[in-house]
Amino acid sequence: MSYERNNIRDMQGYSWGEQPRQSRVIKLNTNENPYPPAPEVAQALTDVNVAELRRYPPPFADDFREVAADLHGVSQNNIMATNGGDELLRLIITTFADAGDTIAMAEPSYSLYPVLAAVQNCKMQRIPLNDDWGLPQDFADQLNASGARIAFIVNPHAPTGRLLSAPELAQIAETFQGVLVIDEAYVDFISPDISYNAVPLVKQLDNVILLRTMSKGYSLAGLRFAYGIASESLLAPMLFKTRDSYNTDLISQRLATAALKSQAYARECWQRVRDERSRLASALSDLGFDVLPSHSNFLLVTWAARQVGGELLDANALYQALKAQGILVRYFAQPRLQDKLRITVGTQEENNTLLQAIRGLAGQ
Amino acid sequence: MSYERNNIRDMQGYSWGEQPRQSRVIKLNTNENPYPPAPEVAQALTDVNVAELRRYPPPFADDFREVAADLHGVSQNNIMATNGGDELLRLIITTFADAGDTIAMAEPSYSLYPVLAAVQNCKMQRIPLNDDWGLPQDFADQLNASGARIAFIVNPHAPTGRLLSAPELAQIAETFQGVLVIDEAYVDFISPDISYNAVPLVKQLDNVILLRTMSKGYSLAGLRFAYGIASESLLAPMLFKTRDSYNTDLISQRLATAALKSQAYARECWQRVRDERSRLASALSDLGFDVLPSHSNFLLVTWAARQVGGELLDANALYQALKAQGILVRYFAQPRLQDKLRITVGTQEENNTLLQAIRGLAGQ
Repeated sequence: MSYERNNIRDMQGYSWGEQPRQSRVIKLNTNENPYPPAPEVAQALTDVNVAELRRYPPPFADDFREVAADLHGVSQNNIMATNGGDELLRLIITTFADAGDTIAMAEPSYSLYPVLAAVQNCKMQRIPLNDDWGLPQDFADQLNASGARIAFIVNPHAPTGRLLSAPELAQIAETFQGVLVIDEAYVDFISPDISYNAVPLVKQLDNVILLRTMSKGYSLAGLRFAYGIASESLLAPMLFKTRDSYNTDLISQRLATAALKSQAYARECWQRVRDERSRLASALSDLGFDVLPSHSNFLLVTWAARQVGGELLDANALYQALKAQGILVRYFAQPRLQDKLRITVGTQEENNTLLQAIRGLAGQ
Repeated sequence: MSYERNNIRDMQGYSWGEQPRQSRVIKLNTNENPYPPAPEVAQALTDVNVAELRRYPPPFADDFREVAADLHGVSQNNIMATNGGDELLRLIITTFADAGDTIAMAEPSYSLYPVLAAVQNCKMQRIPLNDDWGLPQDFADQLNASGARIAFIVNPHAPTGRLLSAPELAQIAETFQGVLVIDEAYVDFISPDISYNAVPLVKQLDNVILLRTMSKGYSLAGLRFAYGIASESLLAPMLFKTRDSYNTDLISQRLATAALKSQAYARECWQRVRDERSRLASALSDLGFDVLPSHSNFLLVTWAARQVGGELLDANALYQALKAQGILVRYFAQPRLQDKLRITVGTQEENNTLLQAIRGLAGQ
């Protein structure tokens, strides 16, 4: 017999990006950072004494919160540490939306949002992005009309890499009557020349929460550590009521703190990713892809289907053919994306191997 | 303005056991293991290369599941790894109970259950234990009469240390129409002479889930790692739908796997805890406490209030006085427990310090 709730029985779970265990695969499909974590992270790991694990960890990860608060110029009460960004996204939904409530997201977007909404038995209002992947002018009005309790925006956007400015976000948050989640998973890859900073919004608006993760910018996807930045009133119910009582472990608290402190190393890695992003974008463009400008560590590229050696080589076929050569990129079998690939910016060597493989497959 | 759901706004959060950061406090209040993790855990930590953290961890913790399945004589599909026992408890509620549904627990019990039920906006049916802290004969009938979708039993029970046999549990599970959670957080401290084993239940009954944690028996409270053992059909919706997509991190997977493999070391620790438990029970009995027999790593002891030096020394006053001396034990200000203390079995030295302090306070 089946015991789960009806909505759980009827829903589809999340589809994990392919995570092959063989380390020789060139993995450009899940937007991991190509460079290792900072040397200070290795040192923090060495400094852990396993005997300390005997005891419960600090329940609020206060050392981490202090470093994050300093970095962003906010108070410790504006920071909440979570077991990866997934936990924060889930907590936002379980804290701010009842079953039956509506949650909204721009479409396309991160495929986890609808899964989390389905778990909470919420309706998902999908608001299509414009042809240029920007938000519709009346986005906030559409949110209010749908009665959404929560809205998700990814900025820089995935899978396109497009960036909304902080004033644009502020305007949406001011009009929207629910909680606006700005998922900044890829924020570290924005050029500092642009001076993007959405953190001041949380000081003025009590309905905005920024999601930051250590997975991408700090090369710690394996560690599961992220944090929210928001007004104290918005964080409090999650900090003190809905999150698991010891949601982050001692080792990840220590390593995440060390990583966040190592800003110089991190900024150097981000610059290297941006440099490679430019080079890869040019090279892909030369190979006939239409390449969207990206503020992130991936590129969304359009591949016009063509005949190669008597076979139709469309985006899906190209994805499959690369995979057969041990190179993983991301293909989305969904409207508006089925002629595209999302390619994570790898190391110079990885990117060169990818380019070489595409040249071979395209007969160039 | 406040954005959280009404039930979240109205509920009380969990009260954390005191976790002082000073390491010289004698901490006998949250049932941590007094001995360090196995040497193999330290080795596994040393073997972690931080560069591996760049990538997402194995999403299902399959290496851990394989070792756990071997240990318990079940299939890997009967094991689910979680970020501490808290996560498993929460997932059980969010997967198997809708808002408004009833969840049941024996009273007194782990204070987290009602908090998790309140988050999901479920009703909590509390079924009082008998005077001898056993379950009422008609427990399963009471569960069914309440319409409970889920029932929680802690075995060995906390805070009493009492043990139900596997046949008793089987009888309850066979009658109960919902999901029976047997929280075995303290199972490792049961004497092997008793041959308690509830694992065979999950092979016969699709509504039973056992919770095991690495926090107590394996000295890894700081790591946040636990697992569920249940029928494949009961675990599947949590494994594939409701849990966070990467719920355990790479380092904790490695360390938990190493700890679970180190059975000889673990069994030796458990025996040392049992030996100290006997010695501490006798000594506390000699000091005038009424000591309940315990199958766990703590003792529930009753302290008859008395006048000492012109002041009333009741259980609460004794707790406070010990705390002032840097010795933490657990006091519960609730019916049936307010004349009792729950004391974690520490090392021989810690227990001696405790006994010495009580002698001083009681004027003996």
